[in-house]
Amino acid sequence: MGPHPAVADVRRAVRESLADLTRGGLVLVACSGGADSLALAAGLGFAAPRMGLRAGLVTVDHGLQEGSARQADRVVRLAPSLGLDPAEVLAVTVGTEGGPEAAAREARYAALAGAAERLGAEAVLLGHTRDDQAETVLLGLVRGSGPRSLAGMAGIVGIYRRPLLGLGRSVTTVACAALGLAPWEDPHNRETRYTRVRVREHVLPVLCEELGPGIPEALARTAALCRDDADALDAWADRVYREALTGRPPAEEASPPARPAVCLSVSVLASCPAAVRRRVIRRAALAAGSPSGALAAVHIAEADRLVTEWRGQRAVHMPGGVGVVRNAGVLAFERMCWGSPAKESRAQG
Amino acid sequence: MGPHPAVADVRRAVRESLADLTRGGLVLVACSGGADSLALAAGLGFAAPRMGLRAGLVTVDHGLQEGSARQADRVVRLAPSLGLDPAEVLAVTVGTEGGPEAAAREARYAALAGAAERLGAEAVLLGHTRDDQAETVLLGLVRGSGPRSLAGMAGIVGIYRRPLLGLGRSVTTVACAALGLAPWEDPHNRETRYTRVRVREHVLPVLCEELGPGIPEALARTAALCRDDADALDAWADRVYREALTGRPPAEEASPPARPAVCLSVSVLASCPAAVRRRVIRRAALAAGSPSGALAAVHIAEADRLVTEWRGQRAVHMPGGVGVVRNAGVLAFERMCWGSPAKESRAQG
Repeated sequence: MGPHPAVADVRRAVRESLADLTRGGLVLVACSGGADSLALAAGLGFAAPRMGLRAGLVTVDHGLQEGSARQADRVVRLAPSLGLDPAEVLAVTVGTEGGPEAAAREARYAALAGAAERLGAEAVLLGHTRDDQAETVLLGLVRGSGPRSLAGMAGIVGIYRRPLLGLGRSVTTVACAALGLAPWEDPHNRETRYTRVRVREHVLPVLCEELGPGIPEALARTAALCRDDADALDAWADRVYREALTGRPPAEEASPPARPAVCLSVSVLASCPAAVRRRVIRRAALAAGSPSGALAAVHIAEADRLVTEWRGQRAVHMPGGVGVVRNAGVLAFERMCWGSPAKESRAQG
Repeated sequence: MGPHPAVADVRRAVRESLADLTRGGLVLVACSGGADSLALAAGLGFAAPRMGLRAGLVTVDHGLQEGSARQADRVVRLAPSLGLDPAEVLAVTVGTEGGPEAAAREARYAALAGAAERLGAEAVLLGHTRDDQAETVLLGLVRGSGPRSLAGMAGIVGIYRRPLLGLGRSVTTVACAALGLAPWEDPHNRETRYTRVRVREHVLPVLCEELGPGIPEALARTAALCRDDADALDAWADRVYREALTGRPPAEEASPPARPAVCLSVSVLASCPAAVRRRVIRRAALAAGSPSGALAAVHIAEADRLVTEWRGQRAVHMPGGVGVVRNAGVLAFERMCWGSPAKESRAQG
């Protein structure tokens, strides 16, 4: 008798995810002890030796809850029975920047990257499922920041791999039960002060009830298509950015700027579609020192009007003290001096 | 004292929407008598004469409910007081194809296009608001068919214009009240057997409650960004399609096909990103006779594997009896004879 279908699904997903790794390499699974990452850990422990790979486990102790060290310890003690060695607890200190969810994520990924380097791992597996992907898409949707934020999580990014993105959460729950593994439910997963938890507990169930049970799958499909689209447009914008980069217009060379500006040819910008132009403008603003977290669609749109609706506007101000001026057919992105107003130009656009 | 702010908002939206029309032209508003199109009709009646335009009203009687003719008549009788002339009832017969919503929409747009042509109108205004746009984005999202279906409704398409896409539904309700107009509520707008109604009545309120009141605005912003992205990628795919079009490979010229196939160069396809390649393949399938309604992402993906994962596969079958074969570096899309299996080719890929 073969394994339970849910167990087989997880094992197959792990195998496919690791197919390109070279024999002898070490793969780690990041395991919280929850159903998703526990099923993933079991799948890795089963598949790795059959693929000539070594497999280990790490679990992050965020130190945010009573008893978190004990829980981390419990996960690590499970590892040998799953065929995972080494197995380590990574204790982290969670800061406060960007809110509790972002700070915990930041600390977690720093610890995982550190452990992967120290242990010489080629890949770190994460237990995100199709349901997590659906939540991520909905969160991106309500931010309203466009297709890139609808692209969800990548299957592979750097050393991280997410083998379970194509499987529903119900599969991991069933797989754990079939394997006699008792998952641990993180109480944070029920805390409705977290936006993601409200999406999971209140929004997605209503969507499924009103519009059909295939919603998580449709959202994951949307993510994949949006990711491909965003990748293609980013590649296009890369080319245009390189093509549009130019020197400072001669009229301004007389007084050399304090630091070099990023200068783009207006005619190159004007010749491409809005979706590409806005990506190129965003790239120039980042290169000039505007912080990506603060740079919003409204800033890009205003700089874009220097190209598309030129009537001699003044400098457009971007976050991080970056000003954008149009002069002599060139759009210059420049870090302004603190306190002084952006240089104004109405000349020769 | 100026007009109520909501009334001013609607009038401004109408003015901006009509700014490019030439003086003396006729603009029609499609008015059901509901708050959105009633406020729009009033806005048009106010703005048009001040812009040197003529303004009229049409209302569609779908004949689906008891008393629909009387309601249509009531709307037309309002027109003179709003400054709208001509004003006509367009009685239509709603079929059944594609379900009740699609059939009613089909009949409605056919009637509007006919009236616009007969009356010589330059534009037909539709009363869709930002809330309708948000519903459309959610409906596209749950279809899972990618960014184009997230792009929602266009502000201008052909003769149709949607001046209110930037305003919330609450604005039109308030505007009607401020103008002393009593909107008529279509009972179909409450019928929860319609998916759109369930999105409006059950899904969006939960999203706003759980994630914040700015959801419709974020969804509308997503639509605009997705539209620009999809437009740019469609333009790219257009170029690649023309570049990839090629003749039938020499190996097959010996036996001339019953009808011409659409042939694409595999090397051109292989050189572009997945998002573009899939659009080009879709275009070729449509050109070969595959019906757009039946052509799904799964068909495109299978044909795409003839390019990206070539190992001598057989013909890929598309809806409408179109087969895709790879031979001698060419992907040929061809309408197969009924009943006969698609020609198989494993040669010289």
